[in-house]
Amino acid sequence: MENDKKEIVTFGEVMLRMSTPGFAKFSQVDNLNMDYGGGEANVAISLAYMGMNAIHVTRFPNNYVGRAAAQFLRHHWVNTSQIIYGDNELGLYFLETGAVHRSSKVVYNRENSSFSKIRPDMIDWEEILKGKDWFHWTGITPAISEGVAASCLKAIEAANKLNVKVSADITYRKSLWQYGKKPQEVMPELVAGCDVIMASAYDLADIFDYPLNHDPETDFPNAAAKLMEDYPRIQRVAYKTRDSLNASHNRISAHIWDGKQLISTDNYDITHIVDRVGTGDAFAAGLIYGLLHYKTDEEAINFAAAACALKHTIEGDANMVDFDDVEKLVKGDKSGGIVR
Amino acid sequence: MENDKKEIVTFGEVMLRMSTPGFAKFSQVDNLNMDYGGGEANVAISLAYMGMNAIHVTRFPNNYVGRAAAQFLRHHWVNTSQIIYGDNELGLYFLETGAVHRSSKVVYNRENSSFSKIRPDMIDWEEILKGKDWFHWTGITPAISEGVAASCLKAIEAANKLNVKVSADITYRKSLWQYGKKPQEVMPELVAGCDVIMASAYDLADIFDYPLNHDPETDFPNAAAKLMEDYPRIQRVAYKTRDSLNASHNRISAHIWDGKQLISTDNYDITHIVDRVGTGDAFAAGLIYGLLHYKTDEEAINFAAAACALKHTIEGDANMVDFDDVEKLVKGDKSGGIVR
Amino acid sequence: MENDKKEIVTFGEVMLRMSTPGFAKFSQVDNLNMDYGGGEANVAISLAYMGMNAIHVTRFPNNYVGRAAAQFLRHHWVNTSQIIYGDNELGLYFLETGAVHRSSKVVYNRENSSFSKIRPDMIDWEEILKGKDWFHWTGITPAISEGVAASCLKAIEAANKLNVKVSADITYRKSLWQYGKKPQEVMPELVAGCDVIMASAYDLADIFDYPLNHDPETDFPNAAAKLMEDYPRIQRVAYKTRDSLNASHNRISAHIWDGKQLISTDNYDITHIVDRVGTGDAFAAGLIYGLLHYKTDEEAINFAAAACALKHTIEGDANMVDFDDVEKLVKGDKSGGIVR
Amino acid sequence: MENDKKEIVTFGEVMLRMSTPGFAKFSQVDNLNMDYGGGEANVAISLAYMGMNAIHVTRFPNNYVGRAAAQFLRHHWVNTSQIIYGDNELGLYFLETGAVHRSSKVVYNRENSSFSKIRPDMIDWEEILKGKDWFHWTGITPAISEGVAASCLKAIEAANKLNVKVSADITYRKSLWQYGKKPQEVMPELVAGCDVIMASAYDLADIFDYPLNHDPETDFPNAAAKLMEDYPRIQRVAYKTRDSLNASHNRISAHIWDGKQLISTDNYDITHIVDRVGTGDAFAAGLIYGLLHYKTDEEAINFAAAACALKHTIEGDANMVDFDDVEKLVKGDKSGGIVR
Amino acid sequence: MENDKKEIVTFGEVMLRMSTPGFAKFSQVDNLNMDYGGGEANVAISLAYMGMNAIHVTRFPNNYVGRAAAQFLRHHWVNTSQIIYGDNELGLYFLETGAVHRSSKVVYNRENSSFSKIRPDMIDWEEILKGKDWFHWTGITPAISEGVAASCLKAIEAANKLNVKVSADITYRKSLWQYGKKPQEVMPELVAGCDVIMASAYDLADIFDYPLNHDPETDFPNAAAKLMEDYPRIQRVAYKTRDSLNASHNRISAHIWDGKQLISTDNYDITHIVDRVGTGDAFAAGLIYGLLHYKTDEEAINFAAAACALKHTIEGDANMVDFDDVEKLVKGDKSGGIVR
Amino acid sequence: MENDKKEIVTFGEVMLRMSTPGFAKFSQVDNLNMDYGGGEANVAISLAYMGMNAIHVTRFPNNYVGRAAAQFLRHHWVNTSQIIYGDNELGLYFLETGAVHRSSKVVYNRENSSFSKIRPDMIDWEEILKGKDWFHWTGITPAISEGVAASCLKAIEAANKLNVKVSADITYRKSLWQYGKKPQEVMPELVAGCDVIMASAYDLADIFDYPLNHDPETDFPNAAAKLMEDYPRIQRVAYKTRDSLNASHNRISAHIWDGKQLISTDNYDITHIVDRVGTGDAFAAGLIYGLLHYKTDEEAINFAAAACALKHTIEGDANMVDFDDVEKLVKGDKSGGIVR
Repeated sequence: MENDKKEIVTFGEVMLRMSTPGFAKFSQVDNLNMDYGGGEANVAISLAYMGMNAIHVTRFPNNYVGRAAAQFLRHHWVNTSQIIYGDNELGLYFLETGAVHRSSKVVYNRENSSFSKIRPDMIDWEEILKGKDWFHWTGITPAISEGVAASCLKAIEAANKLNVKVSADITYRKSLWQYGKKPQEVMPELVAGCDVIMASAYDLADIFDYPLNHDPETDFPNAAAKLMEDYPRIQRVAYKTRDSLNASHNRISAHIWDGKQLISTDNYDITHIVDRVGTGDAFAAGLIYGLLHYKTDEEAINFAAAACALKHTIEGDANMVDFDDVEKLVKGDKSGGIVR
Repeated sequence: MENDKKEIVTFGEVMLRMSTPGFAKFSQVDNLNMDYGGGEANVAISLAYMGMNAIHVTRFPNNYVGRAAAQFLRHHWVNTSQIIYGDNELGLYFLETGAVHRSSKVVYNRENSSFSKIRPDMIDWEEILKGKDWFHWTGITPAISEGVAASCLKAIEAANKLNVKVSADITYRKSLWQYGKKPQEVMPELVAGCDVIMASAYDLADIFDYPLNHDPETDFPNAAAKLMEDYPRIQRVAYKTRDSLNASHNRISAHIWDGKQLISTDNYDITHIVDRVGTGDAFAAGLIYGLLHYKTDEEAINFAAAACALKHTIEGDANMVDFDDVEKLVKGDKSGGIVR
Repeated sequence: MENDKKEIVTFGEVMLRMSTPGFAKFSQVDNLNMDYGGGEANVAISLAYMGMNAIHVTRFPNNYVGRAAAQFLRHHWVNTSQIIYGDNELGLYFLETGAVHRSSKVVYNRENSSFSKIRPDMIDWEEILKGKDWFHWTGITPAISEGVAASCLKAIEAANKLNVKVSADITYRKSLWQYGKKPQEVMPELVAGCDVIMASAYDLADIFDYPLNHDPETDFPNAAAKLMEDYPRIQRVAYKTRDSLNASHNRISAHIWDGKQLISTDNYDITHIVDRVGTGDAFAAGLIYGLLHYKTDEEAINFAAAACALKHTIEGDANMVDFDDVEKLVKGDKSGGIVR
Repeated sequence: MENDKKEIVTFGEVMLRMSTPGFAKFSQVDNLNMDYGGGEANVAISLAYMGMNAIHVTRFPNNYVGRAAAQFLRHHWVNTSQIIYGDNELGLYFLETGAVHRSSKVVYNRENSSFSKIRPDMIDWEEILKGKDWFHWTGITPAISEGVAASCLKAIEAANKLNVKVSADITYRKSLWQYGKKPQEVMPELVAGCDVIMASAYDLADIFDYPLNHDPETDFPNAAAKLMEDYPRIQRVAYKTRDSLNASHNRISAHIWDGKQLISTDNYDITHIVDRVGTGDAFAAGLIYGLLHYKTDEEAINFAAAACALKHTIEGDANMVDFDDVEKLVKGDKSGGIVR
Repeated sequence: MENDKKEIVTFGEVMLRMSTPGFAKFSQVDNLNMDYGGGEANVAISLAYMGMNAIHVTRFPNNYVGRAAAQFLRHHWVNTSQIIYGDNELGLYFLETGAVHRSSKVVYNRENSSFSKIRPDMIDWEEILKGKDWFHWTGITPAISEGVAASCLKAIEAANKLNVKVSADITYRKSLWQYGKKPQEVMPELVAGCDVIMASAYDLADIFDYPLNHDPETDFPNAAAKLMEDYPRIQRVAYKTRDSLNASHNRISAHIWDGKQLISTDNYDITHIVDRVGTGDAFAAGLIYGLLHYKTDEEAINFAAAACALKHTIEGDANMVDFDDVEKLVKGDKSGGIVR
Repeated sequence: MENDKKEIVTFGEVMLRMSTPGFAKFSQVDNLNMDYGGGEANVAISLAYMGMNAIHVTRFPNNYVGRAAAQFLRHHWVNTSQIIYGDNELGLYFLETGAVHRSSKVVYNRENSSFSKIRPDMIDWEEILKGKDWFHWTGITPAISEGVAASCLKAIEAANKLNVKVSADITYRKSLWQYGKKPQEVMPELVAGCDVIMASAYDLADIFDYPLNHDPETDFPNAAAKLMEDYPRIQRVAYKTRDSLNASHNRISAHIWDGKQLISTDNYDITHIVDRVGTGDAFAAGLIYGLLHYKTDEEAINFAAAACALKHTIEGDANMVDFDDVEKLVKGDKSGGIVR
């Protein structure tokens, strides 16, 4: 676990996730399951389980709640040596898990978090990124606060300077972005420093006002092509599609655009979803792993799709499967037979 | 929650429900999940969650078990101000939850309950029903004891006198009716005071000896027409159909007859049932809500069907979904996507 | 439960309490027990269990977390008809329960709560307090924010105008008071409107700079006398003493000063503490109940001390014992024998 | 476990025990711990753990609840081959566990149980008791119903005929005896057939109207002597004393009278009670084991007291300790040091 | 339960099964569910639930862990009178339950178990098998150690001598067989004494080097015919097929060969698997029950397939369904409707 | 947590600890709490919580069970970079927690563990110990197998060569030492390389055949003096005394001998023990911390005794308290008051 050569740095908020057991509504329960999650930390955990040295950078309150969040990351093999501590509150979210036609519902309590109070001078990005292979961030991070957005920009600049590859899952979360800036003002500068972007045509339309024909066949390649034109550092744009039959049954596939052609994977039929949260992060992690370890985009995107499919069966935010599990599925064994 | 104008009164036994966790058999466990339920109280909870003032009338033992049952109803927004207390035992039932080809199994312990010992002079129905919009009872109530049946009749008479609408889900439960009278002797007088009846053709055949052709297309409209002929106060007859592929997968739809035409809803495909108990009560509550708040039968029955569909995903006897959840499904969003 | 004549109004923040099971440290667990508490709501619950109509006024976020907090209060017999809803976050606190020489540890996440954003114009105190018997607040409330302090003042003024008795447990919590005012600026005006104060000599010294001789015999009567001199509306000052042998074993007694004499209760030897949180609120509730229902201060303070003693055996913030339990202990039965 | 020569038959109701976890009040919980218990079955389990063939005779409903009760007895080594099945309801009781000055509280739901409907012709006592060493019953059994009392008498008569020793713990439970007969009418005939009686002076005063001087030194020997005079078959009368400092801390000792002298054990200081229910049954079982396996009354009563002391540390109704545990305590090792 | 005439003896290791709750990975949990299982004991439990006297022979450590394993078997109606005790360790296995495309994973800790140290002289098989109807073993047993294999042979020889029918589920588990012998050396002698064999064409190919055409239609009848030729005592060869769509959804059917014709059952579509472990044992038990109680192979194999189907809905290793449950499914009711 | 300068290396087996919830007996439960522990790893965890870099060296099976054990250590801040993987089984132990006069009982399943199969060539001790401050082992380690004892000797030799301080808690566990050597043959060579020994007079008598006068005042200084005479490298001998009033109530104190004088701490009265396991390891960790960070033996032994006292309130094997908790107790605050 601890001796794979590849090293990745991720940056983002980690929240305490408090979910109701089973399918209970919040008003029915008197205890909650604890977990910790956040888009970038989920990627770090996933890659750590696959053997990479995954260094997550974040800020926690300096009390037992903040330390427990760090301990959770350590537990799941993440390198926590670059975490900083300060202020009093850990962001958290509540989760009611839905089923069939009933949606899962998330309520946040994160506005006053230690992470949101990060200032750019708190983190020495060049020191952290020196000698690393990859830096990953998501669209949630610059949406949190001005200080966090500025820190993210500094990180990207340092990575660019040090020739560390940069990826971003620029998912657009409308309910964030409360600090007075719009994504259209903030995102271009950040995206300009990226090598790989995970985004759907809809995300790109929301953030960059790219036009949509609402044609699933052409919207994505068109938007991806436009993005690579506008931001020439970008080499790959990838995303996953989800056909949500209901909350318990989804079908997914994944797609990657290299500027010339679109490669798509087979469908995965996820007939009995255990936990849908974090499946996008599992896809991102799978793609990063794939791009770092395989020769072709096809292998990379197949690995990403299989990782994403498996995440639907894992409780919690992060994809805690091993490389072997993903590889077995990539090779076509969908039977789920008992391994003794 | 507490300021919707509409007010409903429900009357019936509330039992402690003790269910095995997950899919365990009773002989495998050493702890049980607690819940409380009963056909009419389930309707009250469901309507209280949708914002109505739902007043449940029942009788509990005057000890911590009986008080806890009342507290459960209060917790779920029910108005408990008309509950009376006396005697020693709360009725209860045990539940093993089935899956696929294995049935759920219920064992009752309710023969000696405080509720079964109700006498008609214990409840001042005119006082309770004054100014209310609706009264609801089920076929389980008059099946419990002579005193309970007589109390139910007094309630219906008071409602009729006070121009409070009356509905009944006259489901026929053969294992009850142990006190020496047959449903055929008791039910006609009660049904005669109703405005809305929930019943399948089979229920009507069992209780009123109406003939069945075993033709799903015509049995229900024929029986409903006959019922409205025999009991002219009745304005609507409604029921839901269930296609039970197995214990984990059902398909449901709902139907309403207004004396002239049958309106049917689309099917809901409940692919991953969480809890089937109380889905009929969720349908009844949805129908009452619909008839009180919508202009057309079509809107009302669609609301009832969607409420019933959602109940299959809720643990426990009662449908604890909000109006918004039902409305979203009525509008056609079956995707169950995460709401943040 | 619901028909006692006496009516009390309480005002204060209610937090979600998330505690580790048993004696576990936060870093050891993956689920947390849920409860809700707050000094004044704890008083309301306690008095509701004794049969009073206890109306708690507070503000919750308008989401399932805020509604669940209201449902918890309803569950425990509190009248929730005056609760208002707005903003997004419910204050919460984490609790690690200590034992023997290890302290319990609380971490708060409440700075951004819906309650802290109350403005005085949100609550119509005269409407709420009309015809009520008692109003109770604590020193935590004015420490939260300027808006909350102003609302509390308005409540006291309304109570004074309407001849509703006012009590306050003016416990001093140093870690609060972050909004720019000192207790010395805010408290006098609030205390001036009170009839009954719960406070130790130390609280009075902290808030009013009263001198302390550090003599347990005279410090309290001296400070209480001074307080009643400075604030002539005050008729009684009471407090409880705690001899903390260790986290699992305390001895308590209670004392009341009427301006002339000090009445003290016997000691209660709490040899096996189940939960120490909220024992001061149980004392306050017991005192309010006692002063409203008994003729002598001696009876009232004995009732308060017994209620406080029993709270040490109740899990959660609030004292969920019945009147009979307290009365039995007041009468001297400390044996704890099984009641069948 | 299964090959000790001594064989005992016990007869009595077994109830499902549903207790709140930890020290929670019933109104606070949404799941309950399951256990099964009853005075005589507790004795059977205890003796089965010590290696005897303990045959419990009772009647259960013929459904999964009744069968699970039998399975519980089998699990704990009891011989269930003589259990009969019929009717529908298993008696049950709810338990809130107290602490310090707060009492444990029991609520029963047993009036309509299958056991209470036993008729004497349902059990062939001579067949069951043939070749057995001992028969044990308690004062609860004849208090349940006329049929049960008559069955108990038949059992005692059969035991007397077959020279099987008979013991009875004639504890007096006032809340039972609802079927129209008084203990004074029923008990003499039953007690007359006993060889060993467990009873305190208070039990004897209640049942036989023996006088009490309220002198702990002489009340018991006087009453015991009177009992042996009135019922000459009785050879020994024994009881345990309990000094209940509070619900969490008791001191116990035990005493036996052989018609001539009183032998008393040392005190056991039970400083941290885990579960007080069933400690009398543990004493009875210890005494039966002691009288069957030791030569002197002193050894027997010491064994009984130690068994009773250990039961206070066992969760549930029955004493699930091994012979070695009791013997170690009899020999004086109270240290509770870890055994590896 | 305890008075069915038919008596079966089973022989094999019983392990403590420690599984993660729900679908959690081992690295995510801090408590584990306990169960006990083993191929032959699972058959015994299943048959005991159907009313047979099922005597399981095994060896447990003589400590509380070993005794608890025996208590588990007693709990589930198995006759434990022939279990022997010795040495210190109970074999155990850990189980992570998979879902959809993620496999369940088993890790064993059984190499040093008390069972593996059985020597043939420890068990008097003739004494045990005298007057019994059936003896069952599996291919796991001879794979454990030389002593166990030799004991198994002695059992078969005794059964043959005493005219007790012998069945074997000769499943081949490659990871066992660590003691220096190959199945090809050990199995023939054991199989020669059998009347009924459960095995797929793949098992037969692995163990006896029978050729495979990889044609599902002919492979099994060919292999079965060859087996019956080679081992003339064998009267029936049966197996079940499993179409594993994924870990949560399987389709099964069953087949029996009597030397002349192949009888196959309908498919069972197991759409929501609760627990796949032990489904082969449920099949074996169903077949034994069927062959003992029905007149035709068709009835027997239908019963076996239905029992196997139901096991997929039971948590734990063994099939704890009643005869009525299986019979209802055999008769075609797959609806899983609630039974009240 | 991660930047304290001091670095310690510990070496020993880590077992999975499976304990029954609460005070339940093993035969009563169907789930077990998981934890991991071992004498030396417990020391590492304790020192890691105090801020040291604690590197634990051990060997785990290369499966999810072994990896989870490493993850547990990481979770609790231990440096796991030197753990090696191989073979199949993790040692484990079962724990029933006692109370009052009932002992806790441990059953081991460790004979075939991956750790027991360590060979000296598997670990490069000079590489690991280079630049470290301290090496710690216990008497359990050389008792496991010849390979483990040889590895321990190599570690001590390397430490001596590299001027790394060595401490050992030479507790004597009779049930180990099964591999053919006696402690008297193995221990002298290991003890000779130590600077600090934790041992009671009884341990020293058992291992080195030192005479005992059974005089608590003189036995320890005499034995300690003899030990330092025989093994001149040893600078300090320390131990803790335990007065076990019962399983729930102990009194402890600690003592250190420097060759000239005995320094003893005050008593700690542990009135409500939460978990006694690992308290000796907490003492050892406290002593190591004290000797590394304080100037006087008195400060060091006081720190050790306070750490040990606090461990009695922590669930699990290891002492998860912070430096601040210990320091507060050392300074005399035993009140256990709530920290907010």
